[in-house]
Amino acid sequence: MPELRKDPITGRWVIISTDRAKRPDDFLRERIVRKGGFCPFCTGHEERTPHEILAYRPNGGSANSPGWTVRVVPNKFPALGIEGDLARRGDGLFDKMNGVGAHEVIIETPDHDVDLASLPDKRVEDVLWAFRDRILDLKKDKRFRYVLIFKNHGGPAGASMEHSHSQLIALPIVPIRVREEVDGSKVYYGQKERCIYCDIIRQEVQSEVRVIADSDSFLTVAPYAPRFPFETWILPKQHESAFENSSSALYEGLARALKNILGRINQALESPAYNLVIHTSPVMESTNDYYHWHIELMPKLTKVAGFEWGTGFYLNPTPPEEAAAVLRDSIISS
Amino acid sequence: MPELRKDPITGRWVIISTDRAKRPDDFLRERIVRKGGFCPFCTGHEERTPHEILAYRPNGGSANSPGWTVRVVPNKFPALGIEGDLARRGDGLFDKMNGVGAHEVIIETPDHDVDLASLPDKRVEDVLWAFRDRILDLKKDKRFRYVLIFKNHGGPAGASMEHSHSQLIALPIVPIRVREEVDGSKVYYGQKERCIYCDIIRQEVQSEVRVIADSDSFLTVAPYAPRFPFETWILPKQHESAFENSSSALYEGLARALKNILGRINQALESPAYNLVIHTSPVMESTNDYYHWHIELMPKLTKVAGFEWGTGFYLNPTPPEEAAAVLRDSIISS
Repeated sequence: MPELRKDPITGRWVIISTDRAKRPDDFLRERIVRKGGFCPFCTGHEERTPHEILAYRPNGGSANSPGWTVRVVPNKFPALGIEGDLARRGDGLFDKMNGVGAHEVIIETPDHDVDLASLPDKRVEDVLWAFRDRILDLKKDKRFRYVLIFKNHGGPAGASMEHSHSQLIALPIVPIRVREEVDGSKVYYGQKERCIYCDIIRQEVQSEVRVIADSDSFLTVAPYAPRFPFETWILPKQHESAFENSSSALYEGLARALKNILGRINQALESPAYNLVIHTSPVMESTNDYYHWHIELMPKLTKVAGFEWGTGFYLNPTPPEEAAAVLRDSIISS
Repeated sequence: MPELRKDPITGRWVIISTDRAKRPDDFLRERIVRKGGFCPFCTGHEERTPHEILAYRPNGGSANSPGWTVRVVPNKFPALGIEGDLARRGDGLFDKMNGVGAHEVIIETPDHDVDLASLPDKRVEDVLWAFRDRILDLKKDKRFRYVLIFKNHGGPAGASMEHSHSQLIALPIVPIRVREEVDGSKVYYGQKERCIYCDIIRQEVQSEVRVIADSDSFLTVAPYAPRFPFETWILPKQHESAFENSSSALYEGLARALKNILGRINQALESPAYNLVIHTSPVMESTNDYYHWHIELMPKLTKVAGFEWGTGFYLNPTPPEEAAAVLRDSIISS
């Protein structure tokens, strides 16, 4: 009998197939095809991107020159414009505002043939520091309500450039699903005076069945009501509402946790395309007791039919307990 | 400057690119590949599906024999099981229930090489009657709270069978996005004592810019804040809360409206894959003044990155005004 399970934060129910659960080999994956060709993100091609916003150059050097380990540039085809005011206005019963925001690219490595999973721990940590630096800078802009950081890895996951990178979008609104998560957490806190994610962490550590990796500072789990097969969350074990508020030591732990889970996923699922999203508190409530920042990682194994995002109704062929067991048992290659 | 637009029902904001708007030719579409081979949905192969639940045989004939125009069978690989009770229960702080529900396939034509857009009007009407008959029957089952009808057309949209068909899933819960829409409409009604969809219809008919087709009984529009390029809604012009409550004449009008928009989409966008979802009221509130049933149609033109359904944040490269103009001006081939 399949199970209907409820995500305790958002209230979303999903169907988990438990009878004919899909194992890693049952998925027909779209391969990541590397096309090669000229790449503006490669070291030596700095003049082919917009002027850099931030770069780490361990041995110094001038802006827009080689020698960097991580480099942040404006997106050449931005979804939003950085200049101007919001000009909020109505249009009969509709509402709109100018598409003001920032859209940046975090180039994670100067080397075209390396990806996040194969970077040394310290370099992954640098990427996380770049995320933090950019969030802290953009929070100063009073127009912005949310800074969204995400990574599309591989064409099937929506990446248009193959050189390893993440993206940042600063928005004058809080995206609706983030709002739901934050509000859901707030309701729970109102009832119990406890963070729901902290409660989940305690329960998951105790039950063990959905735990993939457990370090001093981070817990990597298959969530109880995942929308997608092998969906994975990385949660800081100590309560922290915003990604950018974390202490230095935490980024070191996160770099290790992230490399660890990417290694397991690559091993168990044959290096699939994936999407990674940092879920963090909105700018105007970045320090709070109810919301707990975390990373959500979704390997791209299934085709999501349009009706799923029209109805919020997800059908997951792999129980999280089985996904966790597979990932727990996979050997990390690097 | 791009625009941020708010969907007035759900409160979801989307980004609409207005600068470099994508025209139909700008999309790299995944082609619908027809593979052929044995098809259990074809006439003459009735014994290769589970026993039929419903079929229309204009000239009579016995169940599970040829001679039908529309045939409804249980899904051979159902997402939910029809037997048993819900057994709602907790698991620490989590909630679950048995995956009880119905999962049916509506085979829209006995002919493998015909699709919904190329069926005669009367046959499309039959398909709509089959939807209605199945909803009315399943509503008698007290375990079900929502009957979801959708169609995935073409592999890129998630269809696993190429023979033209729709699907029905009866659920013991109301899907979260449906709940949001219904609740959003209820809030608006509470404030204004008017249905928000009725207000939208009035405004769209007056402004004309997003209207694609306008008949006596149905309005076909590009919604104000669409998530996807060429997203299209078909709305009954008279208030009606549930699909299955409509009068007979309405199904005739809907068949024409549906064929009309599919013809325009096929012409303008080179017969893309698409998803179609009937949005209707939940079973327990199927007659009400606040919610207005409608069809949402989403041609599959872009790759949706995973972060979009994690954050509810959509980037649409085609303004609905341009999409409407393209579809309005396209010549219907059949």
